Amino acid sequence: MSPKSGTPKKNLMLFSGRSHVELAEEVAKHLNVTITPQTVHNFANGEIFVRFQESVRGTDAFVIQSYPPPLNEWVMEQLIMVDALKRASAKRITVIMPFYPYGRQDKKHKGREPISARLIADLFKTAGADRIMSVDLHTAQIQGFFDGPVDHLLAQTVLADHIRDTYGESDITVVSPDSGRVRLAEKWAQQLGDRPIAFIHKTRDPDTPNQAVANRVVGQVRGRLCVLIDDMIDTGGTIVKATEALLNEGAADVVIASTHGILSDPATERLANCKAREVIVTNTLPIPEEKRFAGLTVLSIAPLLARAIQEVFEDGSVTSLFDGSA
Amino acid sequence: MSPKSGTPKKNLMLFSGRSHVELAEEVAKHLNVTITPQTVHNFANGEIFVRFQESVRGTDAFVIQSYPPPLNEWVMEQLIMVDALKRASAKRITVIMPFYPYGRQDKKHKGREPISARLIADLFKTAGADRIMSVDLHTAQIQGFFDGPVDHLLAQTVLADHIRDTYGESDITVVSPDSGRVRLAEKWAQQLGDRPIAFIHKTRDPDTPNQAVANRVVGQVRGRLCVLIDDMIDTGGTIVKATEALLNEGAADVVIASTHGILSDPATERLANCKAREVIVTNTLPIPEEKRFAGLTVLSIAPLLARAIQEVFEDGSVTSLFDGSA
Amino acid sequence: MSPKSGTPKKNLMLFSGRSHVELAEEVAKHLNVTITPQTVHNFANGEIFVRFQESVRGTDAFVIQSYPPPLNEWVMEQLIMVDALKRASAKRITVIMPFYPYGRQDKKHKGREPISARLIADLFKTAGADRIMSVDLHTAQIQGFFDGPVDHLLAQTVLADHIRDTYGESDITVVSPDSGRVRLAEKWAQQLGDRPIAFIHKTRDPDTPNQAVANRVVGQVRGRLCVLIDDMIDTGGTIVKATEALLNEGAADVVIASTHGILSDPATERLANCKAREVIVTNTLPIPEEKRFAGLTVLSIAPLLARAIQEVFEDGSVTSLFDGSA
Amino acid sequence: MSPKSGTPKKNLMLFSGRSHVELAEEVAKHLNVTITPQTVHNFANGEIFVRFQESVRGTDAFVIQSYPPPLNEWVMEQLIMVDALKRASAKRITVIMPFYPYGRQDKKHKGREPISARLIADLFKTAGADRIMSVDLHTAQIQGFFDGPVDHLLAQTVLADHIRDTYGESDITVVSPDSGRVRLAEKWAQQLGDRPIAFIHKTRDPDTPNQAVANRVVGQVRGRLCVLIDDMIDTGGTIVKATEALLNEGAADVVIASTHGILSDPATERLANCKAREVIVTNTLPIPEEKRFAGLTVLSIAPLLARAIQEVFEDGSVTSLFDGSA
Amino acid sequence: MSPKSGTPKKNLMLFSGRSHVELAEEVAKHLNVTITPQTVHNFANGEIFVRFQESVRGTDAFVIQSYPPPLNEWVMEQLIMVDALKRASAKRITVIMPFYPYGRQDKKHKGREPISARLIADLFKTAGADRIMSVDLHTAQIQGFFDGPVDHLLAQTVLADHIRDTYGESDITVVSPDSGRVRLAEKWAQQLGDRPIAFIHKTRDPDTPNQAVANRVVGQVRGRLCVLIDDMIDTGGTIVKATEALLNEGAADVVIASTHGILSDPATERLANCKAREVIVTNTLPIPEEKRFAGLTVLSIAPLLARAIQEVFEDGSVTSLFDGSA
Amino acid sequence: MSPKSGTPKKNLMLFSGRSHVELAEEVAKHLNVTITPQTVHNFANGEIFVRFQESVRGTDAFVIQSYPPPLNEWVMEQLIMVDALKRASAKRITVIMPFYPYGRQDKKHKGREPISARLIADLFKTAGADRIMSVDLHTAQIQGFFDGPVDHLLAQTVLADHIRDTYGESDITVVSPDSGRVRLAEKWAQQLGDRPIAFIHKTRDPDTPNQAVANRVVGQVRGRLCVLIDDMIDTGGTIVKATEALLNEGAADVVIASTHGILSDPATERLANCKAREVIVTNTLPIPEEKRFAGLTVLSIAPLLARAIQEVFEDGSVTSLFDGSA
Repeated sequence: MSPKSGTPKKNLMLFSGRSHVELAEEVAKHLNVTITPQTVHNFANGEIFVRFQESVRGTDAFVIQSYPPPLNEWVMEQLIMVDALKRASAKRITVIMPFYPYGRQDKKHKGREPISARLIADLFKTAGADRIMSVDLHTAQIQGFFDGPVDHLLAQTVLADHIRDTYGESDITVVSPDSGRVRLAEKWAQQLGDRPIAFIHKTRDPDTPNQAVANRVVGQVRGRLCVLIDDMIDTGGTIVKATEALLNEGAADVVIASTHGILSDPATERLANCKAREVIVTNTLPIPEEKRFAGLTVLSIAPLLARAIQEVFEDGSVTSLFDGSA
Repeated sequence: MSPKSGTPKKNLMLFSGRSHVELAEEVAKHLNVTITPQTVHNFANGEIFVRFQESVRGTDAFVIQSYPPPLNEWVMEQLIMVDALKRASAKRITVIMPFYPYGRQDKKHKGREPISARLIADLFKTAGADRIMSVDLHTAQIQGFFDGPVDHLLAQTVLADHIRDTYGESDITVVSPDSGRVRLAEKWAQQLGDRPIAFIHKTRDPDTPNQAVANRVVGQVRGRLCVLIDDMIDTGGTIVKATEALLNEGAADVVIASTHGILSDPATERLANCKAREVIVTNTLPIPEEKRFAGLTVLSIAPLLARAIQEVFEDGSVTSLFDGSA
Repeated sequence: MSPKSGTPKKNLMLFSGRSHVELAEEVAKHLNVTITPQTVHNFANGEIFVRFQESVRGTDAFVIQSYPPPLNEWVMEQLIMVDALKRASAKRITVIMPFYPYGRQDKKHKGREPISARLIADLFKTAGADRIMSVDLHTAQIQGFFDGPVDHLLAQTVLADHIRDTYGESDITVVSPDSGRVRLAEKWAQQLGDRPIAFIHKTRDPDTPNQAVANRVVGQVRGRLCVLIDDMIDTGGTIVKATEALLNEGAADVVIASTHGILSDPATERLANCKAREVIVTNTLPIPEEKRFAGLTVLSIAPLLARAIQEVFEDGSVTSLFDGSA
Repeated sequence: MSPKSGTPKKNLMLFSGRSHVELAEEVAKHLNVTITPQTVHNFANGEIFVRFQESVRGTDAFVIQSYPPPLNEWVMEQLIMVDALKRASAKRITVIMPFYPYGRQDKKHKGREPISARLIADLFKTAGADRIMSVDLHTAQIQGFFDGPVDHLLAQTVLADHIRDTYGESDITVVSPDSGRVRLAEKWAQQLGDRPIAFIHKTRDPDTPNQAVANRVVGQVRGRLCVLIDDMIDTGGTIVKATEALLNEGAADVVIASTHGILSDPATERLANCKAREVIVTNTLPIPEEKRFAGLTVLSIAPLLARAIQEVFEDGSVTSLFDGSA
Repeated sequence: MSPKSGTPKKNLMLFSGRSHVELAEEVAKHLNVTITPQTVHNFANGEIFVRFQESVRGTDAFVIQSYPPPLNEWVMEQLIMVDALKRASAKRITVIMPFYPYGRQDKKHKGREPISARLIADLFKTAGADRIMSVDLHTAQIQGFFDGPVDHLLAQTVLADHIRDTYGESDITVVSPDSGRVRLAEKWAQQLGDRPIAFIHKTRDPDTPNQAVANRVVGQVRGRLCVLIDDMIDTGGTIVKATEALLNEGAADVVIASTHGILSDPATERLANCKAREVIVTNTLPIPEEKRFAGLTVLSIAPLLARAIQEVFEDGSVTSLFDGSA
Repeated sequence: MSPKSGTPKKNLMLFSGRSHVELAEEVAKHLNVTITPQTVHNFANGEIFVRFQESVRGTDAFVIQSYPPPLNEWVMEQLIMVDALKRASAKRITVIMPFYPYGRQDKKHKGREPISARLIADLFKTAGADRIMSVDLHTAQIQGFFDGPVDHLLAQTVLADHIRDTYGESDITVVSPDSGRVRLAEKWAQQLGDRPIAFIHKTRDPDTPNQAVANRVVGQVRGRLCVLIDDMIDTGGTIVKATEALLNEGAADVVIASTHGILSDPATERLANCKAREVIVTNTLPIPEEKRFAGLTVLSIAPLLARAIQEVFEDGSVTSLFDGSA
């Protein structure tokens, strides 16, 4: 028998749900590990089954899942993976959600609504998650929904570097597509070098009776390169209308930058046909071939995730990855 | 302003997810109430949104959801409904799952597996469920997975009444399709009047090398009407093979009775083509037209659910519905 | 001895901390109740002592505390009151915070910060609070910090009615004092009849090197009556600089409207000396004589609180007080 | 079917463990109810089984258990009864422990000890207890071990009334048998009319080397009637030695009063043979015939328990039973 | 003073309750450790006291307790040991129950019963247990009752090895003594090399009116060696009647194998007098001399426990001890 | 990238609130560490803000706060520090309270009071505290209020060493200033070498009608050096009256020893003017210059705290610091 005292070991194991294996593999490559092999499938009635093929006892487990449709399927899969890890004696379980599901339901917009973003946090806590890592939460307050540490990574640097390299010489105005993201636009403006900002104000047009809504541009955009920013592009309706409004107001050109490319139908068609010069997203969500189009640039979030995982594993500093602002 | 003391009121409100509205409406009719109107839809990326259209403050809420595919979708929907009810100040929330999802994953069959049936119970507790009502749990131990009252309804009476009315005069043997349901067969045998029982023993056949598995009938079935019972029929493979084995052993006829008709492909085809005289299930799960076939009998579970809801609402006795055995 | 079965009673009791007794008394008057008498004092070393002078067993308790300085003192006092109510068998405990303390610390602005707004919610949950009622949370996401029902009342109607009555005929532009409240400005603009909006963009001025920050007005304000809105006025620095920026840009006049008048030094001096025509706040926080000045209008929040308490007590609808949007 | 809204009912049900049925029956008689019939027995290996014979859904349940040996048996029995009540949907569960088990282990006397009194409180909370009622806790701090309301009843009045009636005319000194109960003696002294107090100081006698411990009387007892008080009498060693010390110091007579008569062997023999004039206890614990002796007076605690239960059931005031001091 | 950073240590400490010290000592010997010395005794009224005599700060604690009568006594003792370990800062606490108490009460057999097996899991969680290790749970679902990792060890291999060595050449039929253990019989049949199976069906005999119950053998046993298996033998009634039924049906011989030898009276007498050739159990429970008889074989579970503890301590794999099936 | 397995590190970090920085610095010096730099301040309305300036990920954090006025301020500050540490992924958080706040409210003295000492324990648990370290709790039962390990340090040795060195040759009587601390006096008497004890009995004087309270000395003090002990001196009223009573009874001299020198006004004046020869306290609370007076001796608690922190960090034994009695 072995001795009964000694020095504990720690080891990092990476797990991946089925929603976006490419991203997990890219992260694994950056970390120089392999994804832990597992048996996972759906039974005929849709129930998910998971079994890990290697011992996970005492491990520092990182479980990646992205959230494209069918999103609820992936929520259950990740919850079940966490439950299996907990019951198999993993030492610490970090849930990695590059895109946090239900982030937009972060409050009751009206009475008798759920706060699903809080529910998601509680469900993962219940399943056994010790910590959460996510990228560009819809609102930063979602950090406070989880009862434990949250590593909130910012993709803005990744996107802004690309913008600066490509359009840095232009007269840029940073534009928020609605009134709720003006603060975000301000942060972008700072990072791009104290650029002016603008936003689109949706309002009923008092001058044109019976017309539902007008998109007024508030701020100076004439003759300027508008960098239209948002945290996510879902069906693309808002962002495309904003592009039109900017061009109508005399903007020289429009570039769209957004962390999460959900690209639900008919986003691809809309974006491909709109007059924006470039649309830039990251791969926090999978972007399959059929959703891609000329003018779409997809930047990888994997290096950022890999560095953050490394810092968490080694008790380093995630904050240091963002100059103190995360 | 109204007085500041008085007598509290109580009122019953019924809520239904989208998975099996027909059942909920049938229950509502039995209870003489209407299902509370709500706004519910999926966003483009699959996220579910729910809002109730009437005040639910202080109500005794009963939330029905069935679990056909896409099962994980319906889990999230019911969780979100419970969250919305909790935040809107419902007084008590009873989650009704006529078919309990993930009931078969009620233990670790091997190492590093989840216990998803416990996870489900914990998720609903976290969301805000005060109590659970379900029908014919895969194993009765699942009652113990929930930290609170569970009303475990038994559909056996509903099914057995039908059998007795139709085949009561025959020489019945009750048969379990595998070794795990023999106890259940024994209970059926008792309820049908102390009938003999048998079961199918799956084994590698030592006499026929290289043949994978043989289905041996253990018990006397020759010349008798075999009532083959199970809690659920999923793809129908086991039950159809059992039917064949019984007929091969000389059974006069086979009748199949099961509470939950999951009927995943190719169950309908298999069952329609097998030589069983009748297949009897309840509507704990929706059974759409395309799954039905000649020889299938669907009994309604709605009267039983309605009576149980009534007893819960009025602090009556659910146990009394089952002669003390629930 | 009395009979051993019967009908339960319910009764409403109102409790008040020491921070803003006037408001509690006004609420009590609207509800036609009296504040429950209590013994409360600080021991020599600052520890707070509370004892209620009437039985609170089985009561529906509403505990009001406002949060002027010394704010942390009042947090502990309200926590201790809740603990005493819990241990004395109150049936339900609603914590009323007209101004939610630490609302601005609702996320980590940088690494290694607390999320004190979540902490506050958890502390009250731990002490025994069943529900929270508050007015104009700094961000609506704070609702999601509490694990239970939150009644989020909106003072905007109270303020907007006053604006409409007084300035309804003017050419109003609604102005957010910074980039983070533009959405709020949009809601105001809607409520005042689809008015245009603007905001103040804080930026380093690239044209004037070495100058720290410029306040650029984004949007049209020239010749218009600017309604400068915010959820709270603390030291008044931001709002007064915004006023100056608007007048510099040619605004005809400025009116300031804010729910929470914290008015920390030197707010009163600043506001009294700035060129705003009127400053409107509510009494969610006490506004003592020495903080008042000509041009300050204080509207009472008590009628709104009283109606909400009444609805909660009677299982009515708080949502209905706000046309569905709370 | 019955209507779907109405007025809730409440009803009181009394349950009793097997440890002290006489007390429960006496309480039932005072309350004019009957103890709920139940099936309860031990299996051959000692496991306890309980089933209630009537529906307990929605009831206000009061569960009495006393704690004579085998004490741990009764702990498990009461825990199991509470679990059964919780799962059978009792509305509220009040655990009544006339004698709180493990009260003496209310702190770590030395390192690496349990705090079993806290453990007991947590176990009952976990099983489903909403509230606890007990008599004369070993230390009042035990109230704080339970996360919920504790009704702490005081038997002192019952005992003191007897003393006053019997010995009120004598020159009484109230005596604590050790240094830890002097405060209690002071309260007694007050209740008996500002009597002087004394206590026994256990110390190594510096004048008599090698003798282990001396019992020094601190305070004036010569020629007086000493009322020796304690919360419990276990083996009686301390109290009998105190009696001897008092008589040695010239006390005229000694009367012993204690709430909890544990009377473990050889207490009865010791007390019967000591020179105390009377030993007074209550029946919080059963006192079987074989433990009784001439000079023992047993007062009933049942009227006090019954009145407290009545107040709890009717949302009255338990505090009022003790002039505000409980 | 020592340095303020470094490498953590880990060390294994073994603790034992008083119920089955021999087993704990055997495990200790296999692990090459000694049982941590402690002071433990009952006070006169039955309360248990425990104090550890060595520092346990930061240790990986394994606490063994078996569950013979007085079973409830041992539950409290193990709970108290866990509480003491938690408060003394043990790093991790593994509760080892070779026989899980109250395993048979794993569901409500009828209404208004407890689910004591879940209660047990919750009590240990509350006391501070991080994980549970047990052998042959009555039903595997009990794993799901504990909110944390459960190492479920299987004694079947230990027993089956003995059977194979001794009776491997015979024509074996594996027999379940009732309808609820047929699945278990199937697993045994597999492990012994695809043997046939049978079971005893308890039923009212329709041919013999007024006779209570008949034990019908279902399956072929004539002329074969019947290995009658069960998880536990309590009073032995069921197993002895099964033995008789098998011999009546012409079985050549009967061998009884069961993990847990509870052997409550009159099990020893019954088993000694029945015609079974051998009765095999393990020492998960103590089997004192007076319970032993010719024909009883007791196999030791200690090597299995020791290996599992070793794997847990070293973050190895417990699953690997059972070829993946635990 | 670094390797993915290895040996974990541990490192000790010390944090200090603003209430008593001198003590924290003294502890730091003894430990040979520096206090972790942080940004901490109050916003204008009193809200506290904290940010740590170094990464705390994975650290073993010790957070010191003392509790002079404004005590509630310091409670919130320490809670917020703990929240920030938890969210920044500290591995373990030990809350150090040399003086435990609200220790005197450790029970309900009358009905409808809080148990604030339990509330404090729960608040810190909720915020994220893993363990508590404190000195001379008002009652030892407070250890049981926290759900986790409590290191209860005893300052008695520090104080008693000083007494023995200075007055060891005198005829000492140890005196409790009231009936509630007689047990403590007994422990002191033991530690000083089996000295006699006495206490002050507060009573209405039956001989002098209408006079409120008399302080009777119980025990022999004439001609002796009275060491008057208590856990804390708040306003000093009780201790000064006790001093007078002792001198009136003929005590040769009085020395006052108390762990916690709260010294609320007018304690300093009272103590300076009373006839006690020396007043000895520790610096668990800050004792600023203006509270000091001739005759006051302040002993440092820092060495004891530092040694205990060291033992906790190194998984040593805190009990060993007190010869087993903590």
